[in-house]
Amino acid sequence: MKYADRIKRMKASELREMLRLLHKPGMISFGGGMPSPDSFPVSTIKRLSNKVLNEHGPDALQYCSTEGYYKLREEIVKKSRKDGIKCDVENVIVTSGSQQVLDLTAKIFLNPNDYVFLESPTYLGALIAFNCYQPKYIGIPMDEEGMITEKLEKSLKGIKRRKMDFVYTVPTFQNPTGVTMSNERRKHLLEIADEHDLFILEDDAYSDLRYSGKPVRSIKSMDKNNRVIYTHTFSKTLAPGFRLGYVIADIERIKKICIAKQAADLCTNSYVQYIAYEYIREGLIEKQLKKIKKMYKKKMDVMLKSIEKHFPKGCEWTTPQGGMYVWVTLPSKIDTRELFDDSVKNNVLFVHGSVFRPDGKGHNTMRLNFTNQIERKIEIGIKRLGNIIEKRVK
Amino acid sequence: MKYADRIKRMKASELREMLRLLHKPGMISFGGGMPSPDSFPVSTIKRLSNKVLNEHGPDALQYCSTEGYYKLREEIVKKSRKDGIKCDVENVIVTSGSQQVLDLTAKIFLNPNDYVFLESPTYLGALIAFNCYQPKYIGIPMDEEGMITEKLEKSLKGIKRRKMDFVYTVPTFQNPTGVTMSNERRKHLLEIADEHDLFILEDDAYSDLRYSGKPVRSIKSMDKNNRVIYTHTFSKTLAPGFRLGYVIADIERIKKICIAKQAADLCTNSYVQYIAYEYIREGLIEKQLKKIKKMYKKKMDVMLKSIEKHFPKGCEWTTPQGGMYVWVTLPSKIDTRELFDDSVKNNVLFVHGSVFRPDGKGHNTMRLNFTNQIERKIEIGIKRLGNIIEKRVK
Repeated sequence: MKYADRIKRMKASELREMLRLLHKPGMISFGGGMPSPDSFPVSTIKRLSNKVLNEHGPDALQYCSTEGYYKLREEIVKKSRKDGIKCDVENVIVTSGSQQVLDLTAKIFLNPNDYVFLESPTYLGALIAFNCYQPKYIGIPMDEEGMITEKLEKSLKGIKRRKMDFVYTVPTFQNPTGVTMSNERRKHLLEIADEHDLFILEDDAYSDLRYSGKPVRSIKSMDKNNRVIYTHTFSKTLAPGFRLGYVIADIERIKKICIAKQAADLCTNSYVQYIAYEYIREGLIEKQLKKIKKMYKKKMDVMLKSIEKHFPKGCEWTTPQGGMYVWVTLPSKIDTRELFDDSVKNNVLFVHGSVFRPDGKGHNTMRLNFTNQIERKIEIGIKRLGNIIEKRVK
Repeated sequence: MKYADRIKRMKASELREMLRLLHKPGMISFGGGMPSPDSFPVSTIKRLSNKVLNEHGPDALQYCSTEGYYKLREEIVKKSRKDGIKCDVENVIVTSGSQQVLDLTAKIFLNPNDYVFLESPTYLGALIAFNCYQPKYIGIPMDEEGMITEKLEKSLKGIKRRKMDFVYTVPTFQNPTGVTMSNERRKHLLEIADEHDLFILEDDAYSDLRYSGKPVRSIKSMDKNNRVIYTHTFSKTLAPGFRLGYVIADIERIKKICIAKQAADLCTNSYVQYIAYEYIREGLIEKQLKKIKKMYKKKMDVMLKSIEKHFPKGCEWTTPQGGMYVWVTLPSKIDTRELFDDSVKNNVLFVHGSVFRPDGKGHNTMRLNFTNQIERKIEIGIKRLGNIIEKRVK
């Protein structure tokens, strides 16, 4: 069968293939990036669903405008302003998850062979979304302060720029590393964007999940010259199954995103937008965040302590202040792909780090998710993984 | 600001602009394509939402597989087999409305300048979705038996084919004309697809809404050689606000659609998939259909009778056996765009027919939706419209 050229680079996420293994009895998975199902506010959602259907049944079940439910957008504006982001309702579109923002942004801006600059490693779902539009990737190395913006600057000087290039970043508690970009780097990134006429796609999926340390301002909140398209999600604070996210940008870009969204799915699910509105309005996000931050902090601490205890010498790992992931670098002679069969046999799953890099490097790295396992299993799973690594180190 | 080349043809639907006028006091709109909000099964959905959250809360709120909730896909298979479509669960993906199927299909198959053959006029949302992938359109004229397949055959002989060309059709109660493709034409279309190595994207959004006449088999149900990608929606039988549709195709194409869907939004809303499953399992689609068919038939009859009574000589219109639209052709000296200001002043809205044609012709045509107004208002609105046309005829 024949397909469009753009599909050549579209391939199934390797994480998807892993899903089948999740159901193997006894399996402990650090693979997926799912919130803990115990954390979902089921009874609250039940109450709010009933309220919405009692009070707004026909509207909540009808098509919505492509931009989204007006009152929800108003609440998003209130929340964003509190976080220092200047915006009005006209700057906000509710989307089918923040994944859709990645797809639509790439759709609007990327011609084949345009450049996307991104942290390396980066969010796999972003690579999958962008791939359809055939960009060239320039991976920027990271350290404990996030993307090394000096290196971005250097890259920019070495290439013949295309018109619509952009920088994609997950600056806070990054997926997959858990690392947060420092305030200085954020400012520097904005300066670079100004100087080189770039825009920044800021994927702020995790910033609500801070367990320690001082909050960092979003890049969007420091954006004076409309350089930033900002996206956030309700997947972490309400329910991923709702597929609710949003984008904030200047009105010109928002209009284009709106047209692209109309083409993609007409509008976001109205029903869950009404529920999300009630949820925010009642101040339940804060309540839910308090609960899950406590829950996830414990899980992370158990994971970090277990790694310390069970991983052999020569391994390094990040110590995030929030988010959902720990990133491990093994001694360079170990290829984490080669651990995979042994892991499956020993009932423990992780994601090898090379899938998060556009260049496929990082053979000795792995991503570990800690939000979706109970603490006892985290300890058991890390011990198993430690043993598997130990065998290779020797 | 600079954008990708593909955005040049992406523009906001003119229907969207119309939305603002809907809220003008006293306005009677035949413009949008919305189901009647009175028809939504609000209390049933409330009951099923509670059931889903009581019994499957954490799963219904978690990410779902990209293909969709397995049990819902099983129910879709059962329904489709009843309708003569050969398929298994592996042939089905649940999507964010059937609009998403149009977007993903074009994304996978269309290189710039590939051909899409479609009824002229056709569904505006399809043009909007396809436009992003820069195809060339070949509009095939219609008569009372739908797309004139002989003309398609002729077109195919006159052009240098591209590899991935496809035919897009809404064969039953077409949007915008209400016309249904005859069985002979459906068979002929499949023969043409075989002969010319084309595939067919069958958009079957309206077939459930039959008010009179004998059911026609879907093209997919006669598809022996995997020529048809079939899409259907829950927007008409459950709730458009749920954004639920599905696609049925051969496994190879389904795999590609799945990859493209993952890139676009990871997965469809899990919560409403669980609700839809319970809804189908309890046989409520049939019950709901019985109710809305009765309701919509009355509305259509009132509209057709009112047109007969109030529209001046020289006007022609379709008499659909189902669906949501009547298509009117006025005397050729009238341009329906020029009626628009007068219509707004007189508080009645319609959509001028040229927006549904890739060539922008059809200046003297209009689409009238009858599902979203109460009968008394249908009569009043058509009378107003008749008066406006009358003035121009003279």
